[in-house]
Amino acid sequence: MSRSINLAVIPGDGIGQEVVAQGLKVLSAVLPEDVKLQTQEYDLGAKRWHATGETLPDAELERLKGHDAILLGAIGAPSVPSGVLERGLLLKLRFAFDHYVNLRPSKLFPGTATPLAGRPEIDFVVVREGTEGPYTGNGGSLRTGTPAEVATEVSVNTAYGVERVVRYAYEQAKARPRRKLTLVHKNNVLVHAGHLWKNIFDRVGEEYPEVTTDYLHVDAATIFFVTQPERFDVIVTDNLFGDILTDLAAAVSGGIGLAASGNINPTGAFPSMFEPVHGSAPDIAGTGKADPTATILSVALMLRHLGFESEAARIEEAVSADLAERSGARTTDEIGDALAVRVAD
Amino acid sequence: MSRSINLAVIPGDGIGQEVVAQGLKVLSAVLPEDVKLQTQEYDLGAKRWHATGETLPDAELERLKGHDAILLGAIGAPSVPSGVLERGLLLKLRFAFDHYVNLRPSKLFPGTATPLAGRPEIDFVVVREGTEGPYTGNGGSLRTGTPAEVATEVSVNTAYGVERVVRYAYEQAKARPRRKLTLVHKNNVLVHAGHLWKNIFDRVGEEYPEVTTDYLHVDAATIFFVTQPERFDVIVTDNLFGDILTDLAAAVSGGIGLAASGNINPTGAFPSMFEPVHGSAPDIAGTGKADPTATILSVALMLRHLGFESEAARIEEAVSADLAERSGARTTDEIGDALAVRVAD
Ligand SMILES: CC(C)[C@H](C(=O)O)[C@@H](O)C(=O)O
Ligand SMILES: CC(C)[C@H](C(=O)O)[C@@H](O)C(=O)O
Repeated sequence: MSRSINLAVIPGDGIGQEVVAQGLKVLSAVLPEDVKLQTQEYDLGAKRWHATGETLPDAELERLKGHDAILLGAIGAPSVPSGVLERGLLLKLRFAFDHYVNLRPSKLFPGTATPLAGRPEIDFVVVREGTEGPYTGNGGSLRTGTPAEVATEVSVNTAYGVERVVRYAYEQAKARPRRKLTLVHKNNVLVHAGHLWKNIFDRVGEEYPEVTTDYLHVDAATIFFVTQPERFDVIVTDNLFGDILTDLAAAVSGGIGLAASGNINPTGAFPSMFEPVHGSAPDIAGTGKADPTATILSVALMLRHLGFESEAARIEEAVSADLAERSGARTTDEIGDALAVRVAD
Repeated sequence: MSRSINLAVIPGDGIGQEVVAQGLKVLSAVLPEDVKLQTQEYDLGAKRWHATGETLPDAELERLKGHDAILLGAIGAPSVPSGVLERGLLLKLRFAFDHYVNLRPSKLFPGTATPLAGRPEIDFVVVREGTEGPYTGNGGSLRTGTPAEVATEVSVNTAYGVERVVRYAYEQAKARPRRKLTLVHKNNVLVHAGHLWKNIFDRVGEEYPEVTTDYLHVDAATIFFVTQPERFDVIVTDNLFGDILTDLAAAVSGGIGLAASGNINPTGAFPSMFEPVHGSAPDIAGTGKADPTATILSVALMLRHLGFESEAARIEEAVSADLAERSGARTTDEIGDALAVRVAD
């Protein structure tokens, strides 16, 4: 285990700044004294784009490569046309650093709100593919803006890309007590991509006889997310289905204020990036209403990725205890302080 | 208003047979005596495919064209490879008959179950595009089954196809008391298709100043479906997003046993097709457990489409009253009988 962390921090837009500050506070508090934490902030996002027209210059991308990991707050502002920062910065990072695993755990902690009656048990993790599918940017528009326009989006899926994420998901499932893996796709309609996914899922599964497998169409999966979320353990799915399902998962398991994610390159060839699932929420930026818990849980995922398992677990236990006891509204800062105190104990 | 209905019936697979029988029972009961109802059954689905290898022969498609409407039960069986009947029969019908509006209302009736705590008010309708998007079947697979496989799915979107369904959705919104229309897409990632949709949505909106508009990314929309479904009135969306969202909508508003749909060609150039959102549910086929209500509500959508507005409303009122009073489990037949009695009153 490395006893130093050289961290890149991209606070980004809106509440990104505020939640990242709390993430760093808890990170400092949880790390043993002998671990040297170095952070470097990168000014990327809406402000920079407005000032310079840049989203992610190549030189910045190069510098980012030198870090052990990246902590990102949130990207996006109403003043920037939709897609510019998402494609030019956030997705560019995921693709450039080959973050083929987008890891998104969902757990309904005691004391948290859920819109579901009866508070079912929710404790699953979505392994979302991060570098293929409809997110590749392939496609285009012909005769744009005219009544004869044709716009296409091409979902690109490769055996190479699918197999590595499916294998990662089986490993995750194997390491969990219930050992169950569900593939979610839509192979009755998207037959080409769907069959590729299903064939690889079945073939790799032969190497994991201890893992129980299941297949669901994405539409049916949304039903089970609200009627029977306890049926899920590990889910593996395509980039876009994963995007949709993990927002729904967040909604049923405590809200988007608690949903953490890791954009992971398991090979270590490039730094992995950790970020809350929520966006920049410009409507509450600066009000102290942002919940930093999702970012703090993302820090836990980062620590686990970097080999600091006991520190990661300490943060997760602190969050669990904090949520169970929390009463009344607290500010972003107060939540960060409370968790920093808990993990330092 | 035509005083006769020449109906094609495709019971299909699994519970399809059972629910369609109840749909026809209620249809006969609700129609005034002077309306001549003619039905013709088409033997299409898994059994035919197993016997002959045919999904939807051209001659059948030709004959189907001669009907005023089509009532379909459900298509699909575990014994048939995924995609064969969906693409070869169900989607072939939607595309051949240019069913560009896939109309799917969601209403939480009193007395019905919802997984949502607090029983929010749910009364919205999804206008799902039915002939474009990722459903076109464009794409393919190269080096299939090898470690070098590449599989693509192409989402095709045209100004022609988007404008007509968006216009239909504005008309729906204009006719409802709340007059609100929400576009759901993912235009921060699927920028080509997303911008096409958004531009047309905004431009057509200028002709409907009385309609309030809103835009949501599909991932965010799933959150609001469970935390704030009352915010929706009419939703217009792409074929795949509509597929996913309407299953979720069904789950929160009484379950898939109540979700009706119409595959509509508003021009009348081809017969429209009405079907429950649910599938063939082979696990409960023949047990009498299938709820025919979704099919019966689909019959109401069909009657409205054919100009029998008061008969359509009568079915919807009967369903509403039946659900409010229903107690204990009833068989498929018993539910059909109860509704037939109510509409005949
Ligand atoms: C902001 C957007 C590009 C992103 C995505 O679609 O992946 C977000 O929704 C997420 O889930 O991280
Ligand atoms: C069976 C399948 C092809 C179909 C679809 O994806 O449209 C179904 O899920 C539906 O919603 O009608």
